[in-house]
Amino acid sequence: MSIQTSIATPAIQQQYQQIRALTEAICRPLEPEDTVVQPIVDVSPPKWHMAHTTWFFETFVLTPYLSGYELYHPRYSFLFNSYYNAVGSRVQRHQRSTLTRPPLRDIYAYRQHVDEHVYQLLQQIRDEELAELLPVLQLGLQHEQQHQELLVTDIKYILSTNPLLPVYQPASQETDARGSTEARFLEVPGGSYTIGYQGDGFCFDNELGVHEVRIEDFQIMNRLVTNREYLEFMEDGGYKDFRHWLDEGLAMVRAQSLEAPLYWLKQENEWYRFSLHGLEKVRPEAPVSHISFYEADAYANWAGKRLLTEFEWEAASQVYPPQSGNFTDSQLLEPLPADPAKDGLQQLYGDLWEWTYSAYHPYPGFTKAPGAIGEYNGKFMINQMVLRGGSCATSGSHIRTTYRNFFHPDKRWQFTGIRLANK
Amino acid sequence: MSIQTSIATPAIQQQYQQIRALTEAICRPLEPEDTVVQPIVDVSPPKWHMAHTTWFFETFVLTPYLSGYELYHPRYSFLFNSYYNAVGSRVQRHQRSTLTRPPLRDIYAYRQHVDEHVYQLLQQIRDEELAELLPVLQLGLQHEQQHQELLVTDIKYILSTNPLLPVYQPASQETDARGSTEARFLEVPGGSYTIGYQGDGFCFDNELGVHEVRIEDFQIMNRLVTNREYLEFMEDGGYKDFRHWLDEGLAMVRAQSLEAPLYWLKQENEWYRFSLHGLEKVRPEAPVSHISFYEADAYANWAGKRLLTEFEWEAASQVYPPQSGNFTDSQLLEPLPADPAKDGLQQLYGDLWEWTYSAYHPYPGFTKAPGAIGEYNGKFMINQMVLRGGSCATSGSHIRTTYRNFFHPDKRWQFTGIRLANK
Amino acid sequence: MSIQTSIATPAIQQQYQQIRALTEAICRPLEPEDTVVQPIVDVSPPKWHMAHTTWFFETFVLTPYLSGYELYHPRYSFLFNSYYNAVGSRVQRHQRSTLTRPPLRDIYAYRQHVDEHVYQLLQQIRDEELAELLPVLQLGLQHEQQHQELLVTDIKYILSTNPLLPVYQPASQETDARGSTEARFLEVPGGSYTIGYQGDGFCFDNELGVHEVRIEDFQIMNRLVTNREYLEFMEDGGYKDFRHWLDEGLAMVRAQSLEAPLYWLKQENEWYRFSLHGLEKVRPEAPVSHISFYEADAYANWAGKRLLTEFEWEAASQVYPPQSGNFTDSQLLEPLPADPAKDGLQQLYGDLWEWTYSAYHPYPGFTKAPGAIGEYNGKFMINQMVLRGGSCATSGSHIRTTYRNFFHPDKRWQFTGIRLANK
Amino acid sequence: MSIQTSIATPAIQQQYQQIRALTEAICRPLEPEDTVVQPIVDVSPPKWHMAHTTWFFETFVLTPYLSGYELYHPRYSFLFNSYYNAVGSRVQRHQRSTLTRPPLRDIYAYRQHVDEHVYQLLQQIRDEELAELLPVLQLGLQHEQQHQELLVTDIKYILSTNPLLPVYQPASQETDARGSTEARFLEVPGGSYTIGYQGDGFCFDNELGVHEVRIEDFQIMNRLVTNREYLEFMEDGGYKDFRHWLDEGLAMVRAQSLEAPLYWLKQENEWYRFSLHGLEKVRPEAPVSHISFYEADAYANWAGKRLLTEFEWEAASQVYPPQSGNFTDSQLLEPLPADPAKDGLQQLYGDLWEWTYSAYHPYPGFTKAPGAIGEYNGKFMINQMVLRGGSCATSGSHIRTTYRNFFHPDKRWQFTGIRLANK
Repeated sequence: MSIQTSIATPAIQQQYQQIRALTEAICRPLEPEDTVVQPIVDVSPPKWHMAHTTWFFETFVLTPYLSGYELYHPRYSFLFNSYYNAVGSRVQRHQRSTLTRPPLRDIYAYRQHVDEHVYQLLQQIRDEELAELLPVLQLGLQHEQQHQELLVTDIKYILSTNPLLPVYQPASQETDARGSTEARFLEVPGGSYTIGYQGDGFCFDNELGVHEVRIEDFQIMNRLVTNREYLEFMEDGGYKDFRHWLDEGLAMVRAQSLEAPLYWLKQENEWYRFSLHGLEKVRPEAPVSHISFYEADAYANWAGKRLLTEFEWEAASQVYPPQSGNFTDSQLLEPLPADPAKDGLQQLYGDLWEWTYSAYHPYPGFTKAPGAIGEYNGKFMINQMVLRGGSCATSGSHIRTTYRNFFHPDKRWQFTGIRLANK
Repeated sequence: MSIQTSIATPAIQQQYQQIRALTEAICRPLEPEDTVVQPIVDVSPPKWHMAHTTWFFETFVLTPYLSGYELYHPRYSFLFNSYYNAVGSRVQRHQRSTLTRPPLRDIYAYRQHVDEHVYQLLQQIRDEELAELLPVLQLGLQHEQQHQELLVTDIKYILSTNPLLPVYQPASQETDARGSTEARFLEVPGGSYTIGYQGDGFCFDNELGVHEVRIEDFQIMNRLVTNREYLEFMEDGGYKDFRHWLDEGLAMVRAQSLEAPLYWLKQENEWYRFSLHGLEKVRPEAPVSHISFYEADAYANWAGKRLLTEFEWEAASQVYPPQSGNFTDSQLLEPLPADPAKDGLQQLYGDLWEWTYSAYHPYPGFTKAPGAIGEYNGKFMINQMVLRGGSCATSGSHIRTTYRNFFHPDKRWQFTGIRLANK
Repeated sequence: MSIQTSIATPAIQQQYQQIRALTEAICRPLEPEDTVVQPIVDVSPPKWHMAHTTWFFETFVLTPYLSGYELYHPRYSFLFNSYYNAVGSRVQRHQRSTLTRPPLRDIYAYRQHVDEHVYQLLQQIRDEELAELLPVLQLGLQHEQQHQELLVTDIKYILSTNPLLPVYQPASQETDARGSTEARFLEVPGGSYTIGYQGDGFCFDNELGVHEVRIEDFQIMNRLVTNREYLEFMEDGGYKDFRHWLDEGLAMVRAQSLEAPLYWLKQENEWYRFSLHGLEKVRPEAPVSHISFYEADAYANWAGKRLLTEFEWEAASQVYPPQSGNFTDSQLLEPLPADPAKDGLQQLYGDLWEWTYSAYHPYPGFTKAPGAIGEYNGKFMINQMVLRGGSCATSGSHIRTTYRNFFHPDKRWQFTGIRLANK
Repeated sequence: MSIQTSIATPAIQQQYQQIRALTEAICRPLEPEDTVVQPIVDVSPPKWHMAHTTWFFETFVLTPYLSGYELYHPRYSFLFNSYYNAVGSRVQRHQRSTLTRPPLRDIYAYRQHVDEHVYQLLQQIRDEELAELLPVLQLGLQHEQQHQELLVTDIKYILSTNPLLPVYQPASQETDARGSTEARFLEVPGGSYTIGYQGDGFCFDNELGVHEVRIEDFQIMNRLVTNREYLEFMEDGGYKDFRHWLDEGLAMVRAQSLEAPLYWLKQENEWYRFSLHGLEKVRPEAPVSHISFYEADAYANWAGKRLLTEFEWEAASQVYPPQSGNFTDSQLLEPLPADPAKDGLQQLYGDLWEWTYSAYHPYPGFTKAPGAIGEYNGKFMINQMVLRGGSCATSGSHIRTTYRNFFHPDKRWQFTGIRLANK
């Protein structure tokens, strides 16, 4: 992780306060019962997210830097350490999904306890130590922002499994359709592009190793693929025609009898989708979301186009730098249609993570940090595909054009979408 | 189900009140988060037990008998009907373990709503209708008592999976050892015994079909097998020696690397067990509990004895009629050692369900009641073994010497124990 | 095992020769490739059956009784010992289904080698030793007869998985329908019947423990249920209606989408079945075969009847002693329709094993023989149901009215059928 | 596929003859029983390989080009078409592993039938048609060479599962150690390299899309990693130390309790390995083989080095062009130690496929051919890693420096090894 240490104490304290508060705001609409379940292995209980992000600060900030700090609870380090892999003994064969204790109210108390001690530390720390501490604190906050996105997607999944179809928050007016934006393809000239993070703020280790990559001329679609376009693919038998699919994608589609994106439900011949606003009709101009890499790739094949590589995406972001996006800051938590009034490249930032046809591998010269923090990214560099640009569940302060998100190609519970390239 | 209808309205109302109150008393020490999880498929979330028993009264008592009754919630019948097997549609692929809504407080409200309407019904019902209603009401109460036992065993299992080893209730003084009671074998003379329920109170359909069974002379052990005795089996390599085991039992023991009863844990060379009082040392004179039929049978083989058949057990109960036992009424929720001061047959009632070497099959002339209530027992009459006598988690008013409980031979989370026969 | 030792040497030698020859006759139509596969875990490769039965004689007859005998191959004991359960080391993680070596021709050589030494032993053995040897030899032959039945059913299953639908042997004229035999119910008077083997020939240990069982009056169907009758059940939605089914049976039917007996196939609206004669139309008057206990029980429920217990079956065989049956001796290897020209109880012997509603449990006083032979029956006495009467794949010399066969209630690849009782 | 059509008829006929003959030579040491099993899903029965490669010529060469050609058997197209994915009907729920028919001798007859008709076609075909046919024929032969490699690796796996540890062919003298070759790292200068096939012979579609890739300076190890070196990793606890492993690799190692390469077996404290010559001691100077990508990557991390990308490998092959290698042509079928007498880059061709840290993705401009042949490569371009250079089971005439082989990162049954890069 790379970070400059010029941030003043009050600034970091304010940033800490805001980010920590957002986590609790996200969880506020939940019942205690909602925070304990794990319907699929990808989804963690919200309670666990709240505790695990707190454990990070206790372990890497308070224990080493605040002298005399005593752990809130001696077993919490065991319970909320996501890195710990040892096989449990017999009575303790727990899984995250059966951890009913500590109850949610204790997790809030744990958060408060740690926050108060972090503030205390920031008051008393000497400047030399602060320089050393700041990168760790910054990493903890970036880490918490990542878990905020997971909180949103995990809550959505948890509520979707309930036949009562609970509403997390009512729909905003802004999420209504804005009308149709025509699909166009914008030129990105070939040549040598510099890939990787070169700034002086925070970035993850997987963005380092700045290097040149040669790109051929190509065209990038001006917006994300819409539900309307995706429905054409569905209605054309797209899920049934093996010619569009990678073999493992086809196997997944058949084994799970998939015929639509995640959360879609057909009722009386009309498509609905479950969202954080409850069940609602599919809005044609909104970008298609909650699709796997396999579906994105099959759609592209059907459309006679292809997905971008992560290098083409980053090159395009240099040609058409994104200014803003629909992030968590909008509090909509659903992607918006493109704006028909706008020219140029839209939705590169926010709305939905864009699947690229690039495997999540190390950049040249990638090295892992020593110690536990070194496990952060490198050990996942196999069998996953890179996604770029952030989503409506990402914080605007968290994203960069060099940011590399990554998921297995079959995952659908994230806010994922499709951007096409044309040769 | 057989039931006499001479019970007066105030009596049934009081009985209803007491039984319904016990369910809530059992759940009182729980956090809302405890009531939602399902660590193994055998265990149901406590919240579900509370709602399902209530659904029974709503569906079979209020809807048909209380004119103008409106359902508390139109979807609860779907959520809390254990009989309903249809495959859920896509968004609704719920399992009991992810049903975070309705929250626990709504379940309490649901219970109160149904209880109030049952009281209202009992006030206004005419005598002719009461005669028809009483058997259904009685069945609902018996059903709730069965779920009370499951609540206790499921709560124990849920808490046991938590590394914090939570205490459900502190240990009582009475559960301390009383000293050792010598094992003796009491004679039961051979001959023809009448099996099945012949009284005029309530019984389940599986106890009917009274018939004669011929028994050979045999001897019955005066008490349950103790932890001390079972430890000898363990220390003699009992879990490793294939000669003691049924083949499928051996496969289970090997696949799960079993070497002790459920909830046992070895720490620093000493055996502990998780109980509703938290983790405690294994008490040598208490009866060994939470063992499968396979372990009971292997122990008996090792000891050169055998298990009783259910007919032998019922015959013994005619020769040595049990008077009392350690039931939920004692509020101990753990089995007690036998009493060294007593002669004769002990622990036939209460403490632990006793595995018999009898498959759970229909008695001659068994017929299922028409309708949903007919699904109560008959459809489970395969691959399960009969257990007799009730346990410390059974209500004293629920048991009879003809009562037939049944579980698959590999199950260990119930309060099960071992009684030996000698040829 | 109980056996009288009055059999003369030439008689046993001739019996040995005949039984061993039948095994090879059963395998003669096979290709070497047919003898090596194991499409489901219940089915063993024919090559393995041929070797395993030979291993029995080598291990329990030649090694202890023929001085100077050397094992045919030092590893065969490991390969062909069905009792051996140890976990294999890494290179050797074999399963029966990948044991391509030794090739079939070596197995024939192994059989010949062992046979020659058995004859040599019989020539030279002294009378006192013969008395000790005969029970073992007899057990080996009974064991081989059991594997002959498995050979027939396993070969049928193996060939059925091949899209070429290979013919094992052409159909005989005798298997054609004989016309319809009306179903009638014959009286069996209630009372006390003696159950178990009392003769002076061979029997298995599970038939011993002769004891009295009290039976109520009942009626037994005069023949097996036919395909025509079973089709009525199917066409009445029998496989879909949960009311007929045990719960675990229903779960199996749904999980496997069952809608007909094993080997049935619908083509152009007509039912065919795969048999050892290839694919043929379902013959309406032949008894329905290859059904599970669950299907037998569901059919009986649908018909308003029930299955017999094993004690009722044995009692009926005392009232209506069977004289003959369609066994392997007929070389038909398929069940025949009942004979409309005959009165009385038909098909009690042969044609199809009849599922009873009795769990396979020990008789009173059951004891296992010491040593490996003691593992023969006792360790399987859980979760299995008793079948009676033998089938078209059983040798006539192998069956008795006290013979207890047993399979799990979900098994369908044996020659199993339905006999009904009426209260 | 790209192919020049200047090859004369006699030349292609000779090439056809030689390649087809090699397939049968590889299978000659097998028993019929060896050719039918499928111990793991990756391994196909040898019989199937022999038939499937023949089906290719029947389907794509004879049926379209030889007028009047009749299929050898109408069902073989169904049986031996690896592309066919439809769910089988009930009787036909075959898997490759239970296809005992057609027997091996019929497969030989099928091969002969197709070969004769191919020769007949080549005699009578007109030049214009030959130009069209040649690419297909060439693809069929390349396809058969690929299956020859699979035949060798599948046979090795099949025999390895047999406790008799059968010998496929005796070891040759040449496979003895040649002494130790010191590990050195050779410079490959950074810059822009042209990647992909530019020649005028045959290549696969996945090698086309020639493009420039920019490489940084790096060093390449002069030979493959040896067993001796790999044993140091093992003895240093390499399989236990999570720091060396990708997370999914660690999960595999733990789930399968891996502690050595495939086929290794420890006996009396010494390491042996199963090979096509039977069980033999691990030879220290031979290259370590049958390791997964995960093991290759973990070894590289432990050694403080890394694997090459496929682009670096191809660049190195331009700087140090390989001349020859240990291919099937040597008939050794095992990798050889490097030659201590030689300088420079060794073993780039042959011996073992070298895992690269490159995902198997399309080159820029990749397009699939229309029709069934288009399914050849493109649909596998996910979750697999590229391997380069061929192995001792590859034909020398089959390899190119641009050749891209690919397997999932957990696969170990191929002849795979490790080549290190140093930054």
